[in-house]
Amino acid sequence: SGAASIIGGKFTAGQIRQEVALAVSALTSKGLRPPGLAVVLVGERKDSATYVRNKKLACEEAGIVSFGTDLPDTATQQQVIDAVKAFADDPNVDGILVQLPLPDGMDERAVLSAVPIEKDVDGFDPLNLGMLATRGTEPLFVPCTAAGCLELLQRYDVPIRGKVAAVVGRSNIVGTPTAMLLQNAGATVTVVHSQTPDAKAVCANADIVVAACGVPEMVRGDWIKPGAAVIDVGINAKDDPTKKRGYRLVGDVAFDEAKEVAGAITPVPGGVGPMTIAMLLKNTLDARMRSS
Amino acid sequence: SGAASIIGGKFTAGQIRQEVALAVSALTSKGLRPPGLAVVLVGERKDSATYVRNKKLACEEAGIVSFGTDLPDTATQQQVIDAVKAFADDPNVDGILVQLPLPDGMDERAVLSAVPIEKDVDGFDPLNLGMLATRGTEPLFVPCTAAGCLELLQRYDVPIRGKVAAVVGRSNIVGTPTAMLLQNAGATVTVVHSQTPDAKAVCANADIVVAACGVPEMVRGDWIKPGAAVIDVGINAKDDPTKKRGYRLVGDVAFDEAKEVAGAITPVPGGVGPMTIAMLLKNTLDARMRSS
Ligand SMILES: NC(=O)C1=CN([C@@H]2O[C@H](COP(=O)(O)OP(=O)(O)OC[C@H]3O[C@@H](n4cnc5c(N)ncnc54)[C@H](OP(=O)(O)O)[C@@H]3O)[C@@H](O)[C@H]2O)C=CC1
Ligand SMILES: NC(=O)C1=CN([C@@H]2O[C@H](COP(=O)(O)OP(=O)(O)OC[C@H]3O[C@@H](n4cnc5c(N)ncnc54)[C@H](OP(=O)(O)O)[C@@H]3O)[C@@H](O)[C@H]2O)C=CC1
Repeated sequence: SGAASIIGGKFTAGQIRQEVALAVSALTSKGLRPPGLAVVLVGERKDSATYVRNKKLACEEAGIVSFGTDLPDTATQQQVIDAVKAFADDPNVDGILVQLPLPDGMDERAVLSAVPIEKDVDGFDPLNLGMLATRGTEPLFVPCTAAGCLELLQRYDVPIRGKVAAVVGRSNIVGTPTAMLLQNAGATVTVVHSQTPDAKAVCANADIVVAACGVPEMVRGDWIKPGAAVIDVGINAKDDPTKKRGYRLVGDVAFDEAKEVAGAITPVPGGVGPMTIAMLLKNTLDARMRSS
Repeated sequence: SGAASIIGGKFTAGQIRQEVALAVSALTSKGLRPPGLAVVLVGERKDSATYVRNKKLACEEAGIVSFGTDLPDTATQQQVIDAVKAFADDPNVDGILVQLPLPDGMDERAVLSAVPIEKDVDGFDPLNLGMLATRGTEPLFVPCTAAGCLELLQRYDVPIRGKVAAVVGRSNIVGTPTAMLLQNAGATVTVVHSQTPDAKAVCANADIVVAACGVPEMVRGDWIKPGAAVIDVGINAKDDPTKKRGYRLVGDVAFDEAKEVAGAITPVPGGVGPMTIAMLLKNTLDARMRSS
């Protein structure tokens, strides 16, 4: 009966950005250095350029100084690594991110490993994931999208401890860290992936469903337990001739169906998407606070 | 109808130990240095002393040179760390393990972090767990008990890819790495822990159950799906007046019940237990091969 409440990622992200901005101005008003975030962008992908621009705008708005190196498609792997290393040595830079994907043929792991863990605000260092998985240790940074999913559940008072959760997808940057965070918070987690025999049954049994599989609208209404919380990480373009640009954005959940069954659900766009950037600012602030 | 086949951990561990012994003698027959394993033992716990003695015997049998430092209960944390560091600097030592638990009040994490990752044959370094969790990277060492569970499933031809698995327990050294290994091998894994609402239902749905909760005989016969593979990590002493020593060892699975339902099951003792030491020897050999 269309009863699901909407988990407003845009609103919550705005709150977090404001919290970060306040903390930054508390620093600068004491004459202290503001946080700095550096982005290394390789090549001319339009979507990557848009992401980077949005990150820089968000930084500016929060008082975080942004740094950037743009390299052409033709850059060598060593040149990319050197760009990362220059920021690693720069005391005004607290966080470094390498915009992915890198051009074909470049070794992502080799480039990322040039980011020192204290500046790894994306949380992509395997040691960060290991510290997240190890009880009794804390990661320096949690990957931004995963952190955003948990932050939404927490700020919307969705109970996690003692609940059953399904995470659809097991990527290093979304599914896997989200599953770890949910388990650390006391959920019983099942991770669904491309070899899972009955993804629907796993989701239908869950109080919390996080969809991060990159398959447009894969999670249908009858995959959702009545009253469950649904976090949709997916961002997919779907043909839509009624739109001027010819497509619209849809998630990995069939929103119109799921909202009839779920207790709470994130929209796409305006759900997890804005949270990712907000958590990046938060991680950069955390890095700055640690450096002093 | 008592149909479960027995997964013979003792037998398989013997095979692995023989494989290691062969590889070691291939080294030494070429005049090369044999692998070396160092054990740091603090205090006088009887069970710990027994474990350490068994590890040293197994090393000897496989041609691995064993080193050891025994420190009294009264040793300071710094003295324990110094003992670890001495082995870290010793070129004849390929693997270092610190026998746990350490005496009360000692910071386990601080002591373990003195073990360099290239010699962390227990696989306890958070970076090892992180590399195990990260797709596209491989850990230097997998924690021995978890590696032993997977090795048993593989050597007994239990299919994993596309199957459903339940891991009962989420400790850093057993449950968590075992769940990661199963997921990496293509299983859909649910991790059960003390806040799980319905552990029985999770297990009853699984093709593979790994029990590592430390609760004697918690997993009952009616928790097992007919034909499932059951790996029992538990080692618990249960009062038994019919035994001379007054107790017998039981697992975390009610063996007599479960063997009537399961397709294959490990006994306790003689299941996972012997595999843990065998995998330690294997990890030490791997460390040696890398060092050359
Ligand atoms: N909101 C945001 O800020 C962000 C959104 N995204 C979006 O989130 C989604 C996931 O991104 P990402 O994690 O990077 O994606 P990846 O492509 O890296 O991972 C997708 C995962 O989903 C699994 N999967 C794929 N198809 C199926 C299927 N049919 N059934 C079950 N599981 C399946 C894959 O399984 P297997 O491992 O077996 O291959 C894989 O683990 C995408 O839509 C992406 O656009 C991503 C990052 C940030
Ligand atoms: N064969 C071998 O060589 C080895 C055997 N062992 C044996 O394996 C077992 C597990 O060892 P270890 O991993 O070190 O144990 P830990 O005590 O470190 O962890 C036990 C785990 O089981 C969970 N658990 C405890 N009680 C319950 C319950 N009632 N229901 C569901 N989950 C529960 C705990 O949950 P939570 O996290 O929520 O507290 C915890 O994650 C023990 O019996 C131990 O003796 C251990 C190492 C080697």
